[in-house]
Amino acid sequence: MSITVGIIGCGYWGPNLIRNFVESEAARLRWICDADAERLEKISRRYPSARTTLDYHEMLSDPGLDAVVIVTPVATHYRFARRALEAGKHVLVEKPFTSSVREAEELIALAERAGLTLMVDHTFIYTGAVRRIKELVTNGEVGDLLYFDSVRINLGLFQHDINVVWDLAPHDLSIMDHVVGRQAVSLTATGSCHIQPGIENIAYVQLRFDDSFIANFHFNWLSPVKIRRTLIAGSRKMIVYDDIEPTEKVRVYDKGVERHDANADKEATYRTLVSYRAGDVWVPQLDPTEALRYVCAEFLDAITRARPSVSDGEAGLRVVRLLEAAQESINNDGRLIKL
Amino acid sequence: MSITVGIIGCGYWGPNLIRNFVESEAARLRWICDADAERLEKISRRYPSARTTLDYHEMLSDPGLDAVVIVTPVATHYRFARRALEAGKHVLVEKPFTSSVREAEELIALAERAGLTLMVDHTFIYTGAVRRIKELVTNGEVGDLLYFDSVRINLGLFQHDINVVWDLAPHDLSIMDHVVGRQAVSLTATGSCHIQPGIENIAYVQLRFDDSFIANFHFNWLSPVKIRRTLIAGSRKMIVYDDIEPTEKVRVYDKGVERHDANADKEATYRTLVSYRAGDVWVPQLDPTEALRYVCAEFLDAITRARPSVSDGEAGLRVVRLLEAAQESINNDGRLIKL
Amino acid sequence: MSITVGIIGCGYWGPNLIRNFVESEAARLRWICDADAERLEKISRRYPSARTTLDYHEMLSDPGLDAVVIVTPVATHYRFARRALEAGKHVLVEKPFTSSVREAEELIALAERAGLTLMVDHTFIYTGAVRRIKELVTNGEVGDLLYFDSVRINLGLFQHDINVVWDLAPHDLSIMDHVVGRQAVSLTATGSCHIQPGIENIAYVQLRFDDSFIANFHFNWLSPVKIRRTLIAGSRKMIVYDDIEPTEKVRVYDKGVERHDANADKEATYRTLVSYRAGDVWVPQLDPTEALRYVCAEFLDAITRARPSVSDGEAGLRVVRLLEAAQESINNDGRLIKL
Amino acid sequence: MSITVGIIGCGYWGPNLIRNFVESEAARLRWICDADAERLEKISRRYPSARTTLDYHEMLSDPGLDAVVIVTPVATHYRFARRALEAGKHVLVEKPFTSSVREAEELIALAERAGLTLMVDHTFIYTGAVRRIKELVTNGEVGDLLYFDSVRINLGLFQHDINVVWDLAPHDLSIMDHVVGRQAVSLTATGSCHIQPGIENIAYVQLRFDDSFIANFHFNWLSPVKIRRTLIAGSRKMIVYDDIEPTEKVRVYDKGVERHDANADKEATYRTLVSYRAGDVWVPQLDPTEALRYVCAEFLDAITRARPSVSDGEAGLRVVRLLEAAQESINNDGRLIKL
Repeated sequence: MSITVGIIGCGYWGPNLIRNFVESEAARLRWICDADAERLEKISRRYPSARTTLDYHEMLSDPGLDAVVIVTPVATHYRFARRALEAGKHVLVEKPFTSSVREAEELIALAERAGLTLMVDHTFIYTGAVRRIKELVTNGEVGDLLYFDSVRINLGLFQHDINVVWDLAPHDLSIMDHVVGRQAVSLTATGSCHIQPGIENIAYVQLRFDDSFIANFHFNWLSPVKIRRTLIAGSRKMIVYDDIEPTEKVRVYDKGVERHDANADKEATYRTLVSYRAGDVWVPQLDPTEALRYVCAEFLDAITRARPSVSDGEAGLRVVRLLEAAQESINNDGRLIKL
Repeated sequence: MSITVGIIGCGYWGPNLIRNFVESEAARLRWICDADAERLEKISRRYPSARTTLDYHEMLSDPGLDAVVIVTPVATHYRFARRALEAGKHVLVEKPFTSSVREAEELIALAERAGLTLMVDHTFIYTGAVRRIKELVTNGEVGDLLYFDSVRINLGLFQHDINVVWDLAPHDLSIMDHVVGRQAVSLTATGSCHIQPGIENIAYVQLRFDDSFIANFHFNWLSPVKIRRTLIAGSRKMIVYDDIEPTEKVRVYDKGVERHDANADKEATYRTLVSYRAGDVWVPQLDPTEALRYVCAEFLDAITRARPSVSDGEAGLRVVRLLEAAQESINNDGRLIKL
Repeated sequence: MSITVGIIGCGYWGPNLIRNFVESEAARLRWICDADAERLEKISRRYPSARTTLDYHEMLSDPGLDAVVIVTPVATHYRFARRALEAGKHVLVEKPFTSSVREAEELIALAERAGLTLMVDHTFIYTGAVRRIKELVTNGEVGDLLYFDSVRINLGLFQHDINVVWDLAPHDLSIMDHVVGRQAVSLTATGSCHIQPGIENIAYVQLRFDDSFIANFHFNWLSPVKIRRTLIAGSRKMIVYDDIEPTEKVRVYDKGVERHDANADKEATYRTLVSYRAGDVWVPQLDPTEALRYVCAEFLDAITRARPSVSDGEAGLRVVRLLEAAQESINNDGRLIKL
Repeated sequence: MSITVGIIGCGYWGPNLIRNFVESEAARLRWICDADAERLEKISRRYPSARTTLDYHEMLSDPGLDAVVIVTPVATHYRFARRALEAGKHVLVEKPFTSSVREAEELIALAERAGLTLMVDHTFIYTGAVRRIKELVTNGEVGDLLYFDSVRINLGLFQHDINVVWDLAPHDLSIMDHVVGRQAVSLTATGSCHIQPGIENIAYVQLRFDDSFIANFHFNWLSPVKIRRTLIAGSRKMIVYDDIEPTEKVRVYDKGVERHDANADKEATYRTLVSYRAGDVWVPQLDPTEALRYVCAEFLDAITRARPSVSDGEAGLRVVRLLEAAQESINNDGRLIKL
């Protein structure tokens, strides 16, 4: 029996989720909700069998509705998600999960009490590229992780309600969270507002962990060139993930540096104690399936089996915690924030 | 009449300076000094007319010697430069200038009292690429500077006496100092040691200024790919300086974002208040002359005319001040350092 | 009053033409015709106001229909176009125009006698990139044209009814025809069949003109990498048109070689008589409008004003003449074919 | 006991050969010969132990000299090589071997009669890249070879005595000859002279073999961009060899197309009979050793063991045969030349 789905928000991203749920055999699109009547009518013409409403209360009060997908501005996520959970619906929320840690924690608690699935659309972790990277890290091929460095810059669309960190960082922080699987202990961040006062359009975020692993991020709406590149260095292999590349997005380098035992001949110069490895490069073929298809499948399966999803509320919370800390650091001249 | 030059240090970089002084008509190579007899003999065979010595005192005591070029490990710069200035010689020092601000200040004071030229080999600012960028910034074509972002990463040679900041940052900090022409007010830096304890092989440095201009740097000896790219964004143009490109190193983008007057129609959505400009890209032809030729010419001319050089002791000091602050910040978990 | 349009063929490319005619204010989509009932129904759902038919005779017999757009396999172009012209309809045919020169000539004569517009969908010449290049050539900025070199290779879809020349060459030959504006005097071509007997999957075509200008083409369905690059060298500027680039498709190089007067000093070596120019590179901003929009507009305007279109039957014929000659040369071991 | 070597010609390439012979333990540089006294003196200063002469007869009459290396303009290769062989010296000639097939055949016969080593400096086949490619082809990993496509273009130095084919084609023809290991049966070539009458600066050469394998070459001195890329497609793997890449010169694609048995269901559309394979890409680590070092070692070892070298006179002859045929085809409007 298929799960009935209602969606709130048909702006830029919403239609993609609608399309994927419609194409899923495990789901049935039952409701489309948007505050903009014109937009609602337009999308409705493409999916005439779904009911439409301008009022999400109407949708939430439908006992035949199982799950709600929230694709609205981040400031409204908490409100919509809370109401949906209170109405007994499973919830998939667009990233970033919420505007604050407190909101995220409340939603998680609420979902847990109600025994409902709460999931965040961390789309990137469902891409063929990131799933392959995760696999390479998990199976030990990469070795011990040394650092994670991510650059996501472009002449991007300036948002007026959120800054570049809240806009772009959810992508890279969720990728890092998924791939690295460890929690940072502190964070520093710096940013600057060049166009709109109070809304950073460029930002750098650094995460420290309890050992020498570090993660660094550069987010930028005001770059002449589009770069989306992540370096993930391990003790055995290094990965370059370039999302701009049409097909060869992941490159695995058999490169590295090794330090040798120090009880060497005293006369030996230091350089003989460090050796460099520069071997083959390998570009694995990736699953080209649209990531959103897996997002929808994961959501539906998590509901069916009553199991946590890969990007559950806790994953969403971990990302929001970093976003909140980054904002706090930026607001305080790059002060170190303990996590 | 040509200026007589003596060089201390014939390792990796020294021979390049020797060659350029030898090819200059304004100079005459008089001394070559190195602590390694074998190396000294080898280089001597190529320049048989120069005197050689293992003892720099011998060289400094030659009254026929006008200028000394110091191309030794940074820890020794101060000692050699001080002795040379005390011996009445003009001094050109390899970058970074000194190991500390205090040393740099002493040398500047010493040179000033003695009326001698003191210059630092900030090679990059003499390249065709950086000179062109400086020109574009100075003549107003770039507009107000918004940010400076530099990435210099590679599977680089691990040094055992200095970390990646002291090794690579002098390049980018001197470029920024030269192009931007303003002083940062504070700095944060983070780094990590993956191979050698106590010697950072990856580091990020952020500089804040007294307005919204910021500068960020990524230095890395442990990257699978070689990247040397600097973004310089201005209100009118944006520059990408890619030093890996064999000829098209500088690209000038007629791209930007403008914010419009806010007393617009209240109904207008915010997006109409920000407009995007995406025009032509222009790749200026650059002077391909080897930068060191200009370094030598600048040093000789500064001596002859008794004028400050473009990369004088003060320029060297400004870079060392940033290096010292970056180290301090790294040592203190990325704490903000006031400059 | 808008022109009524009927389309034959709703496979891969047809829907794009339908969409553009629907979006045009000067046209009204009146008929959609396809031999596949399922496909017809599917497209019909998106454009419910258009009439549909499996039988193109029904469409052609509608006196309210002004123009017919033919987007079917090339072998059928002649038949459909002839019937449409005979029925008094203006005709836009997908490229390549026809399967033979004879067919093309017949259609041109037919359209001329009937006073009807006959146009070929040489899409590429309507792109922002090619229009910009045409402009640079026409206004003299490029100087005298020296050569045209085009590579269009990929791991492409193997066609079973036409070879790689008939599949890919119409793109580049129409671009060359448009930009260069001159007729070749002879042609040689070579090709090979690696997968399907009798169907070349790789081919090279060379055109000679009545002076030193030459044009060369490499077409390939069996390449590991996707390349779509054209070099257009002129005596004053050289253009690289890289269609893979997302935005910077056209690069204009101020590069060249000049030969100087020969009554130079006899002692002078020859090299002093040739000088090299390596100046700036310029990447002009291009009109990003979808080319098909201009194709449709041109067709409608040509009908309205009863004027020849930029890619009229004659342009289509010139391309088919080259295709036919290329096939003949391939079939005869690369024999020179006079045009 | 080391082999004594004398070199004729110290222009652009000669010093590289000198350096490699000097660094070889199996050789001793005994003579340097050049017609330009100034050049001779300059090079002599670097290698003071070698005798110098303006007159190659003097060198050839030295009974203590074992081998002669000829690095002069191609028009003189035959004369110098013949005299050297007649004087009983082993000979290494710069590529292209000779100006004509007849000259090449004479030299081969002469060397054979005298029992002397005759080798051609086909440098590229000794590079890490080409040796790796040869290995991949030889061990069957690439499968059956389908085509070879090479582009070598640049804003190159215009030669006044030879055209672009004789200048650049020896590189690619020798690579193809070495890797493919089969002889073409016919050839067509076209070219054009844009700067110097009678000296082609752009040319295309196509080789046909006795099956569907073909080879195509584009040579160009007048290109705004530098491209040195070879595609080698096999039935199992495809190789892209990009010599511009600093380190990742060879990429091996697990890509291809397979045709399936035709006694399939009649209803099945043709497309089901062709399947596409798009797997991983692999970038093998290459031996970075300078190719000339292997050239010298091969020459010396061939002399010592009295065995044919990898690039012996026959290899040189095969390349000259193609060069001569290409010229003949160009001179005859691209006529097919049987080989």
